[in-house]
Amino acid sequence: MTLSRPITQAASALRDKFREVRAASLALAAPLSAEDQCIQSMPDASPTKWHLAHTTWFFETVLLQPHAAGYRPFDVRFHYLFNSYYEALGPRHPRPQRGLLTRPSVNEVHAYRSHVDEAVLALLEGGTGEHDWAAIEPIVTLGLHHEQQHQELLLTDILHALSCNPLLPAYRPAAGPVLRLAAVPQAMRWLPQPGGVVQVGHEGPQQGFAFDNETPRHAALLQPYAIADRLVSCGDYAQFIADGGYQRPELWLSDGWAAVQAQGWRHPAYWLAADDPRLETQPQQGGWQVFGLHGLRPMEADAPVSQLSFYEAAAYAEWAGARLPTEFEWEAAFDAPGISQMTSHVWQWTRSSYDPYPGFRPMPGIAAEYNGKFMVGQLVLRGGSVATPAGHSRPSYRNFFPPAARWQFSGLRLAKDV
Amino acid sequence: MTLSRPITQAASALRDKFREVRAASLALAAPLSAEDQCIQSMPDASPTKWHLAHTTWFFETVLLQPHAAGYRPFDVRFHYLFNSYYEALGPRHPRPQRGLLTRPSVNEVHAYRSHVDEAVLALLEGGTGEHDWAAIEPIVTLGLHHEQQHQELLLTDILHALSCNPLLPAYRPAAGPVLRLAAVPQAMRWLPQPGGVVQVGHEGPQQGFAFDNETPRHAALLQPYAIADRLVSCGDYAQFIADGGYQRPELWLSDGWAAVQAQGWRHPAYWLAADDPRLETQPQQGGWQVFGLHGLRPMEADAPVSQLSFYEAAAYAEWAGARLPTEFEWEAAFDAPGISQMTSHVWQWTRSSYDPYPGFRPMPGIAAEYNGKFMVGQLVLRGGSVATPAGHSRPSYRNFFPPAARWQFSGLRLAKDV
Amino acid sequence: MTLSRPITQAASALRDKFREVRAASLALAAPLSAEDQCIQSMPDASPTKWHLAHTTWFFETVLLQPHAAGYRPFDVRFHYLFNSYYEALGPRHPRPQRGLLTRPSVNEVHAYRSHVDEAVLALLEGGTGEHDWAAIEPIVTLGLHHEQQHQELLLTDILHALSCNPLLPAYRPAAGPVLRLAAVPQAMRWLPQPGGVVQVGHEGPQQGFAFDNETPRHAALLQPYAIADRLVSCGDYAQFIADGGYQRPELWLSDGWAAVQAQGWRHPAYWLAADDPRLETQPQQGGWQVFGLHGLRPMEADAPVSQLSFYEAAAYAEWAGARLPTEFEWEAAFDAPGISQMTSHVWQWTRSSYDPYPGFRPMPGIAAEYNGKFMVGQLVLRGGSVATPAGHSRPSYRNFFPPAARWQFSGLRLAKDV
Amino acid sequence: MTLSRPITQAASALRDKFREVRAASLALAAPLSAEDQCIQSMPDASPTKWHLAHTTWFFETVLLQPHAAGYRPFDVRFHYLFNSYYEALGPRHPRPQRGLLTRPSVNEVHAYRSHVDEAVLALLEGGTGEHDWAAIEPIVTLGLHHEQQHQELLLTDILHALSCNPLLPAYRPAAGPVLRLAAVPQAMRWLPQPGGVVQVGHEGPQQGFAFDNETPRHAALLQPYAIADRLVSCGDYAQFIADGGYQRPELWLSDGWAAVQAQGWRHPAYWLAADDPRLETQPQQGGWQVFGLHGLRPMEADAPVSQLSFYEAAAYAEWAGARLPTEFEWEAAFDAPGISQMTSHVWQWTRSSYDPYPGFRPMPGIAAEYNGKFMVGQLVLRGGSVATPAGHSRPSYRNFFPPAARWQFSGLRLAKDV
Repeated sequence: MTLSRPITQAASALRDKFREVRAASLALAAPLSAEDQCIQSMPDASPTKWHLAHTTWFFETVLLQPHAAGYRPFDVRFHYLFNSYYEALGPRHPRPQRGLLTRPSVNEVHAYRSHVDEAVLALLEGGTGEHDWAAIEPIVTLGLHHEQQHQELLLTDILHALSCNPLLPAYRPAAGPVLRLAAVPQAMRWLPQPGGVVQVGHEGPQQGFAFDNETPRHAALLQPYAIADRLVSCGDYAQFIADGGYQRPELWLSDGWAAVQAQGWRHPAYWLAADDPRLETQPQQGGWQVFGLHGLRPMEADAPVSQLSFYEAAAYAEWAGARLPTEFEWEAAFDAPGISQMTSHVWQWTRSSYDPYPGFRPMPGIAAEYNGKFMVGQLVLRGGSVATPAGHSRPSYRNFFPPAARWQFSGLRLAKDV
Repeated sequence: MTLSRPITQAASALRDKFREVRAASLALAAPLSAEDQCIQSMPDASPTKWHLAHTTWFFETVLLQPHAAGYRPFDVRFHYLFNSYYEALGPRHPRPQRGLLTRPSVNEVHAYRSHVDEAVLALLEGGTGEHDWAAIEPIVTLGLHHEQQHQELLLTDILHALSCNPLLPAYRPAAGPVLRLAAVPQAMRWLPQPGGVVQVGHEGPQQGFAFDNETPRHAALLQPYAIADRLVSCGDYAQFIADGGYQRPELWLSDGWAAVQAQGWRHPAYWLAADDPRLETQPQQGGWQVFGLHGLRPMEADAPVSQLSFYEAAAYAEWAGARLPTEFEWEAAFDAPGISQMTSHVWQWTRSSYDPYPGFRPMPGIAAEYNGKFMVGQLVLRGGSVATPAGHSRPSYRNFFPPAARWQFSGLRLAKDV
Repeated sequence: MTLSRPITQAASALRDKFREVRAASLALAAPLSAEDQCIQSMPDASPTKWHLAHTTWFFETVLLQPHAAGYRPFDVRFHYLFNSYYEALGPRHPRPQRGLLTRPSVNEVHAYRSHVDEAVLALLEGGTGEHDWAAIEPIVTLGLHHEQQHQELLLTDILHALSCNPLLPAYRPAAGPVLRLAAVPQAMRWLPQPGGVVQVGHEGPQQGFAFDNETPRHAALLQPYAIADRLVSCGDYAQFIADGGYQRPELWLSDGWAAVQAQGWRHPAYWLAADDPRLETQPQQGGWQVFGLHGLRPMEADAPVSQLSFYEAAAYAEWAGARLPTEFEWEAAFDAPGISQMTSHVWQWTRSSYDPYPGFRPMPGIAAEYNGKFMVGQLVLRGGSVATPAGHSRPSYRNFFPPAARWQFSGLRLAKDV
Repeated sequence: MTLSRPITQAASALRDKFREVRAASLALAAPLSAEDQCIQSMPDASPTKWHLAHTTWFFETVLLQPHAAGYRPFDVRFHYLFNSYYEALGPRHPRPQRGLLTRPSVNEVHAYRSHVDEAVLALLEGGTGEHDWAAIEPIVTLGLHHEQQHQELLLTDILHALSCNPLLPAYRPAAGPVLRLAAVPQAMRWLPQPGGVVQVGHEGPQQGFAFDNETPRHAALLQPYAIADRLVSCGDYAQFIADGGYQRPELWLSDGWAAVQAQGWRHPAYWLAADDPRLETQPQQGGWQVFGLHGLRPMEADAPVSQLSFYEAAAYAEWAGARLPTEFEWEAAFDAPGISQMTSHVWQWTRSSYDPYPGFRPMPGIAAEYNGKFMVGQLVLRGGSVATPAGHSRPSYRNFFPPAARWQFSGLRLAKDV
């Protein structure tokens, strides 16, 4: 039986996409030594090697084992090692101990990737009848978006790991392709928005892939508001610090102030004050230094502030006499005239808890555990960051993290009532 | 100058209300020994004596010191001892160490209450010109609602303390005034609700007192839904347990399942299974036993299930093929025909995180710390419980607790999409 | 059958001793309110009421239940509540939760004591044939020494509890019988000791009661040494502090320095520096203030320093160019000419770990758990303190605590090699 | 100036020894990948790479910087990274974060070693006048013994790390040079020892190198005793387990029993019971499996039991109706006729706390921190293990670890009173 032409073309396109996304993961790991790829600097972060293997495990477990007849697992023990949090798939290696997995080696993980890549490409090539295609195309697509999420996490996690090294090594010398945040020097302007009934959420499959948590699309009712045309910059944030922002409890949520005191927060996690002892063995600069993927660099006043917790974002907004936008305000303003830096700079904390949309239904199968079970205790971030793969995000995209998380490319944009 | 008649009448009424509320606190403490009133069974709970003193401190600090000329504090050291969490009022005794305050004694705290009561009543009687009245009436009213909140906490906290004693002593013998939850034996029915644009939040001062977190009143857009006519009962919940509810991760939010495993949850916190070793020295009964204010009693199948965490409530709803209502769905259905048990039984967990309303502004002055700074990481409960003082709650009332809290009179009502 | 006269006389004397020791416990609790007697300020300390009940439980469990025919337990549930650490006697209330036992009330504990006292006295009076006497006399004697140990702990534990109250209330006004440490103003002198083969340990039953850990008496070989004629005084210790003692790691054992840094130690636990915020509501004095059983008092330079950990004692000795004596050096010097303050002031840390003596055998029966199972990770203290009941200690007595313990009446005496 | 012949010869011999010891460290690391050498599986263990670097830092800091004129440090930042616990040498990288040091890479550490090796050999070759030799020889010798200690730790630490990997990879295939414990199949016999006054401790420099904690040599007085002719074997220990050893509190010290319960101990740390889930992907064997440097192997009944904590060793001895020897009993029996397995198998826990010898004085200079500051809270082990470098141990050698340590090559030999 021959495939219909549309499916043949779609399968070919998907194979290309698959190769591209899988290659991108390896490219991100390329600057790192085997040692770098192995360590885990805190329970919330994972080793590079683990990201490379887990995304592979996802294809193996969700796609190949149920759908590729005769597929032979690369190593049955990996099923236990590289499951992340899928209860339906049985026990798994404890998350805080991912950094102890020196074996399999990074070379073995590369072999694992190749083994799975070949099987996926063969599956997409070969017996893909219409019935099969309907079953496997959504899984492959989900797997690729899953892998792109881990590409960003690979960067945020290795950045955290490197930040724990007193030598403050750079992920990649600044000479290479830039992962810096672009500067936007102008003063912030308020963009008034009318509010009213707006449609939020993803429009549906015909508009491309979306996660279940972006659906169903539905109407929401907004009050009039204003939103900032740009992100809060490092220069803005330095004024908050200079004004005693980290010493004034009235600016903070109660849990945030508790974190400030318990953790000794005095500035963003990756900023180094001039008297930081780690600067003793670095070239003298003066002023704030900021650690990033290109290593330690002087703070750029016009660049968006990043690696902020929700608590810090909310305190800054309070100090500025403003507030964070809700996730729906943010989404409604996505195409507002004059607005900038909505994507590709930093994820933007919103004042919205990560609750389900009305009528929310999780994806079927094991993907049911993908998003829904995390809908408590987290806050929504919108937009996308310098570390987000091109094409991965969209206006309805809902990222989410606990309010104390300080190792993401996360910043803020102000809003206010009018 | 003579007061206008309306103020005179209002002041008289407020004095009566003040005496009534203050006496009610003492009445709740009356069944407890000095020892009982002193202990703190966990950092989240406070000793009875501390509640009695803290509510007094509130009147002294917020009302008398700024507004009662010549007021002499009972003991200046109490300012440090009985501040709860008001950062603007300076340092305070650490919350987890409230149970170490054997001094002042419960008798001294009674004297403290009398001292402050006299001063408040004198202030309300005497120099209350129109200007003064406008200043002090809202503070007294806030103080009384504050005290009523602590009346409920006094009960929930002592119940937790008594539950930690292997003898499982009763707060009050069942012969006295009943604090039991009334049974509603009939089968649950679904009440369809139209949704659409609804007004939520408190209507304003002309409708009586409300906390800042219930305002501003605003429009919200709801999808059509159905809501249960009654609360989930103990009998309902026992079926969930019998069906393996505490062993099935797919029913639970991720944080909830982690709590089940880490804490060994197998049933509601105050239920005792038939093999509980604490039952060895109790009269034999068989079946579930439930610990409550009247001590240990056989589970009543038709009584609402109580002392549930949000995690347990959400898992039950998932198991039942339903969900929790949002706080606005709950509020919109408050007067729905056929609905029952909306108040006076148990607080009802909603599927709404405790976020600020659009245009929310905290109360002025130190009361700014009352509600707003807790708006992260908590879930909204609606309704009111058997322990809520009469007249304290209202349809727009927003109670809030962290999702793992298991020592409140908290249960649930189901909702579903239609 | 009539008893032999010696037994009759001995039984009469033991009844007197029993009444005396039991009354002494109540006298120590007398200054404390029911609230005071209920609280537990840390897992290592116990409530006053618990001490009163546990010592009673000991007589009930070890003496009455096996030996008093027809004895009816006061409340079978107390067997679980007031067992301390006897594994052989089954499960018990968790140690850190002793402060949650508001029930039984202090009055019920008094009734428990009376019930047991009557039964013990009746047992000693009545059917005490020779055979019985041989069985019960050692148990009663052990129980009384056990109770005397708890009398000292009752004081150390309530002192810790009161020290946690910002009001720093006094256990007993200084006007009453003095529990202060006597001053010895003279300069310290070294007393040379010859060493050689010495006999250490208790001489045997004919010399009176001893715990198993003091036996067998045996020979030990000592090098010549010198020992200080008096204890280290507060004035001595203040010089150590002033000389940077708490800032110089070279003076400390590794674990001690870790404790200094982790706990922020800057002086003995019950000393208050002049800038201590708790002094704001106290009469102004200047200089060190020391909290003790009579409340807060100015530091007395000639009084022995107390409430020291082993770590602090060892660091002081290092700073003084000396060392702590071993337990055998201390015992060999007990009657050395010119030596003072060997008992009744503070327990004296030795440089000896709490190891078993050669040929050590635990007491038989449940008393086997009394001493031997704690012989690891602790240090020996010798002497006795102001809180030790008269006649309780002796030269061979081995007290023991973990090296970080700071709430005992514990100080030090110097020694050195010669 | 020419050196005297004896010094020339001694320097030549020391250079040879230096080359040999330094090469041995690299040989131990050779079977490990860069990933393996980087990880830290618990705070008490260190990465292989860290051991390689720290031993190098010791020579650089203690020998080269003070004594090698014109020595240029390899990288000044390593002074902070590779200091272990020397307070006198300033701040250092936190011990629990040693596993985060992916940089410097293992290759850079190799370069560091070469740089320091060349400088040390040059120093030993060149300007070594008599005066210099007297200064540097003891430091080089200390450094080599220090490195040998870390060679054993390198093995114990990587074994722990590999034991945390569910794949249970072998450090080295069993085909290579054997690191297994030799079997001694015969029944245990008691060897009576006379006791009396014995000389213990190291005899002095003329007898070769010793650590300060082995001195001064002094007389000790022992009671008659008997000591076992061989170590407790795995077969012996399996009987203890089968007899409920881990379920009987009466066999355990109090802290030991607490560890059994809190940690869920059921057998030695590296033993796997037949139902261990990690065995599912291993070849089926039946019976106990033991993880060691050659991977997972069936338990050998005649091999000495290893990786025991002191608590387990003491409980076993209690169960066997015996006890552990004191360290002096062990030392006095070192050459007893008929005794075997005194070295080269497992370190043997003694019943002696790690206290200072009479007249103990720490080594001068920074080496003062080497041993003395750890003399509290630890137990002495004697002998030497399969992982101890040849020639490193001696009869007076005092190894020491906390009583809960379970990752050393540590077992036991029985003793008893006679």
